[in-house]
Amino acid sequence: MPESAEKFDITFLPDGLTVQAAVGETILDIANRGNIHINASCGGEGVCGRCMVELKEGTVDAAPGLYLSEEDYAANLRLACRAKCNGAATIFIPLESRGDASVFKKAARAEEAVSVETLDPMVAQVDMELVPPSNDDNVSDLDRVAAALQAQGESDLLLDLDTVRLMPAALRDCEFKAKATIHRELPLADRERPPVNRILKFSPQSPDQGFWAIAVDVGTTSVWARLADLRTGEAHPPVADLNGQISYGEDVISRIVYADRKDGTGLGTLQGQVVATINNLLSRLEETVPGYRKGTFLMTVSGNTTMSHLLAGVPPRNIRLAPYVPPVASWPCLRAADLGIEVEPHTALQIFPSVSSYVGGDIVSGVLASGFYKRPELTLFIDVGTNGEIVIGNQDWLTCAACSAGPAFEGGGVKCGMRAAPGAVEDFSYDPEKKEHHLGVIGGGKPSGICGSGLINIVSELFKAGVISKQGKYVEDSTPFLRTAEDGVEYLLAPAEASAGGHDVVLTEIDIENLIRAKGAMFSGYQTLVEGVGLTMHELENVIIAGGFGRSLNIENAITIGLLPKLPVERFKYIGNSSLTGATLAALSGSMWLVANDIKGMMTNFELSETPGYMDKYMASQFIPHTDASLFA
Amino acid sequence: MPESAEKFDITFLPDGLTVQAAVGETILDIANRGNIHINASCGGEGVCGRCMVELKEGTVDAAPGLYLSEEDYAANLRLACRAKCNGAATIFIPLESRGDASVFKKAARAEEAVSVETLDPMVAQVDMELVPPSNDDNVSDLDRVAAALQAQGESDLLLDLDTVRLMPAALRDCEFKAKATIHRELPLADRERPPVNRILKFSPQSPDQGFWAIAVDVGTTSVWARLADLRTGEAHPPVADLNGQISYGEDVISRIVYADRKDGTGLGTLQGQVVATINNLLSRLEETVPGYRKGTFLMTVSGNTTMSHLLAGVPPRNIRLAPYVPPVASWPCLRAADLGIEVEPHTALQIFPSVSSYVGGDIVSGVLASGFYKRPELTLFIDVGTNGEIVIGNQDWLTCAACSAGPAFEGGGVKCGMRAAPGAVEDFSYDPEKKEHHLGVIGGGKPSGICGSGLINIVSELFKAGVISKQGKYVEDSTPFLRTAEDGVEYLLAPAEASAGGHDVVLTEIDIENLIRAKGAMFSGYQTLVEGVGLTMHELENVIIAGGFGRSLNIENAITIGLLPKLPVERFKYIGNSSLTGATLAALSGSMWLVANDIKGMMTNFELSETPGYMDKYMASQFIPHTDASLFA
Repeated sequence: MPESAEKFDITFLPDGLTVQAAVGETILDIANRGNIHINASCGGEGVCGRCMVELKEGTVDAAPGLYLSEEDYAANLRLACRAKCNGAATIFIPLESRGDASVFKKAARAEEAVSVETLDPMVAQVDMELVPPSNDDNVSDLDRVAAALQAQGESDLLLDLDTVRLMPAALRDCEFKAKATIHRELPLADRERPPVNRILKFSPQSPDQGFWAIAVDVGTTSVWARLADLRTGEAHPPVADLNGQISYGEDVISRIVYADRKDGTGLGTLQGQVVATINNLLSRLEETVPGYRKGTFLMTVSGNTTMSHLLAGVPPRNIRLAPYVPPVASWPCLRAADLGIEVEPHTALQIFPSVSSYVGGDIVSGVLASGFYKRPELTLFIDVGTNGEIVIGNQDWLTCAACSAGPAFEGGGVKCGMRAAPGAVEDFSYDPEKKEHHLGVIGGGKPSGICGSGLINIVSELFKAGVISKQGKYVEDSTPFLRTAEDGVEYLLAPAEASAGGHDVVLTEIDIENLIRAKGAMFSGYQTLVEGVGLTMHELENVIIAGGFGRSLNIENAITIGLLPKLPVERFKYIGNSSLTGATLAALSGSMWLVANDIKGMMTNFELSETPGYMDKYMASQFIPHTDASLFA
Repeated sequence: MPESAEKFDITFLPDGLTVQAAVGETILDIANRGNIHINASCGGEGVCGRCMVELKEGTVDAAPGLYLSEEDYAANLRLACRAKCNGAATIFIPLESRGDASVFKKAARAEEAVSVETLDPMVAQVDMELVPPSNDDNVSDLDRVAAALQAQGESDLLLDLDTVRLMPAALRDCEFKAKATIHRELPLADRERPPVNRILKFSPQSPDQGFWAIAVDVGTTSVWARLADLRTGEAHPPVADLNGQISYGEDVISRIVYADRKDGTGLGTLQGQVVATINNLLSRLEETVPGYRKGTFLMTVSGNTTMSHLLAGVPPRNIRLAPYVPPVASWPCLRAADLGIEVEPHTALQIFPSVSSYVGGDIVSGVLASGFYKRPELTLFIDVGTNGEIVIGNQDWLTCAACSAGPAFEGGGVKCGMRAAPGAVEDFSYDPEKKEHHLGVIGGGKPSGICGSGLINIVSELFKAGVISKQGKYVEDSTPFLRTAEDGVEYLLAPAEASAGGHDVVLTEIDIENLIRAKGAMFSGYQTLVEGVGLTMHELENVIIAGGFGRSLNIENAITIGLLPKLPVERFKYIGNSSLTGATLAALSGSMWLVANDIKGMMTNFELSETPGYMDKYMASQFIPHTDASLFA
């Protein structure tokens, strides 16, 4: 703790948790130390204004500024990342600044069924035909095992020291009626070579401790995990939670910046946070299959390129520096326990390959899950988020790109924006006759902000009602909900007294601008890829929408504002958390894991910012739905 | 510490070192904790009587017994392994009970030159032809590296997490003018398959940090290490020290028993001791090549089967239980740092393959060094010690066996026996005319005991002089040095007043019996192997003597007593520490490492105790030189 040895208590409401602190520490740092979540989209850099808290008792050192008005200051509001403590204090974290994982707990229901054609995981159990040693046959344990495995068709065998150390007792405890669990490891970047076969463990042929793999999707916001039964091919319902890294920045760029902190602790902190999140999920999996860890030999992890590096503890710095070269695209096989993941030391870890710095393993996994890579139809695959990823292609070719859409779809850069959590306005309808609106709020209570899908629905409805123009501006006197405030013209969704947070919930013209920028970035991305192969948008036969954001996306409204291309609605399909589904497929099937590596190899990546014509397309997209009306005819 | 929290000081003379102790601890345990060596051949079991110390001040709980006479007790002598402390005390460790490493310091001179035909180590450095990343070529670091290595003929590449973590900075620090150091790893027990190639490290092509391997011979008594320059093929002079495990038992059986202690700490203690010994030697190697560790990528270790297991921390219990199955004969490639060896994490470790529980990697290494495996002449290779190992063969076949000779050659089981350290009687001549003898003492001072080679010389001289009969008994009245004591007839080499320890130095008939047993075990072993392939002893064309004991062995005297076969002296060759030489060859040359694995595969092991006819041969050998005079005609 810096500056002073004197310590005092900071109490955080509404949970009533207390954390010891010293003079000079920020409220955000103190909360992080106590694992209390405060939104800090920018990673505590003081440039997002999302970490507003209310000082209930005591004082802190803070001053009004760009993200803290004189009025806010007078109302005892403070930015947690800027306010430094000088003594005991009580801090209230309002709903908008809180991380709320309840949405994930709700979502932890059975996802769509996962089934594989062949149950052929990258880990295999071989019942060894061992003759117990005798005077006439006293070769070493390991020579005995290797000969038996070779006779049973296994070659290129490796094993680690810890496996050797446990071997003598393991073989004798079952009187040499043992099985070997073997992991097929692909050599680096060389699909032509056969795998090497690492013996992970020797164990009795019976009793059976089960044979499991864990599939994990590490998202920037949320982490999902599920158990896959390698005997039956069945995948259990997933569990999910917020990624513990979220207190250190909401998007990948702020995480990379944090990981690169000068004091050298950033990478370790973020690595520890995501591992802690995974470990919590693994504990929850015990509820359905107690003791599954003993029989767990494989963990497959899909995540974007940054998440994969942070999990593995590999410095991600170069991901955000031109020319955007990630250290690793195809990961070597690792051991999960080496990363601090609380599984047995014998559990192998396969991280999905990434294509580039911003088209990651989650997209490779999603494409694997979607199956369009093996069909003839021209397909657009999209995952909408701060980084929107786009894949276009079919069984013969795949191109991909990432567009920096900005945080609007996740409620960022929007005055009253928030994540899709209780209190967020998600549905919106507007009656142009009666000039009335209706708000649909997640959780059913009073509104406290607007989430990304809500933003799309509101803008679409108001555009159709003539309240918002093609240029994204409010049409004067079109509705009584418009008013002029210090930020310009804004639409009042809910006055302070009708809101959960006691603040007006509004949509400003700047918010609309940000949404238009975001949807334009996505749309011009599709166009660039489609036209790059000499096709047109109308030729798209399928559009597959993946990722958490897509779950609540209204397709027609998304077409109305120009986020999605104008195509018959039946061509669109939402496939949920395809990254987790792909990870589950690869856990159950080695063939699928090989396909994932092939998909990575097939994909041609476009750096949009370096692609001629992209900027023109982007500029042309900055209207509702688009300047080129023929695209949306 | 057991039994009491009260602590007091135990001071050990002559070094004046003080160790804190508690009531009930034995002097041996306390000394071990302070890294003070007291001989304890039996590992502290109270059954060898070698750990005699003198109580100078204070009291200890002890009583006279089998190995502590009433007179000894009255003279304040105590057995360190039996005497329990009850308060502060001062303990003198006499010369005979002390470990003395000075013999190794003296021996750390240039061994015979080691040279390899091909300088082709199992680690290779490849200057990679990397194109630095650009907008047009922004594949990941690892894909870039893998493609460059593949283009340069490398395939089947693996790498570990720590190597990945260091890669991004390593490549950029040298602006992508990097080299990869790659270790060729043999798959288990399968010489037909190509090696897998593990990338150990990325480093700049310049400046050069050298390219080194460390060859280590881990003996039961002593550990040797030397540096091998992988650029020039030159081997530096070796350094040596007592194996720190020696305080826990002098032979492999007592070490295995200690490793298997019920409290579960034995294996870790012995592993830590030998690693500490190696680490001390590695520090001493800094004196010739400061900073060599940064450029060290390979360590080759040869040791007997037990030493290999103890170094790797693999439970050795089954080595001493019938049917004598060691856990490991062919070792997988390891990382030296994983064992606690103080080298960089990138240093690979290759442990020599063993043939059986008692024909270990030191013998495989010795055969490699001797070169007889590639020549047509019928050769006997022997390493004399508590476990004497024997190899017979030529370029076409190899058979081997271990004989349990007992500790006589190392001074054990002999009333005044000691290791070949200062004070040991090594040379002996007897003038039958004048009935005078002359003693040659190591170090030149007064005698304090008899070492193994001294024992052979004394018995041979006295046999030739008619003082000892063919049956190994003293011939009555043959010399004035004979007397009858409580143990029977004995020969007085030096009276108490002319000795270093203040005790008579004598050779008893029981000592002669033990020597005859030991030499007979060896000789009947040669016979069994030679006759097992239908040959006779006289057909042996070469006899190669390896190991520390051979250095001071008088060949003619050894033939006289029947330890060595009766052959012209020019057929005998002493090759020194061939285990270290073999380890050095394998460090410098991958071809030699492959040959070592082939030698292991070629060797047919005989369990002598299970071989018909061995016991008859052994019984027939219990004379000087042998009952079958034709063998020594």
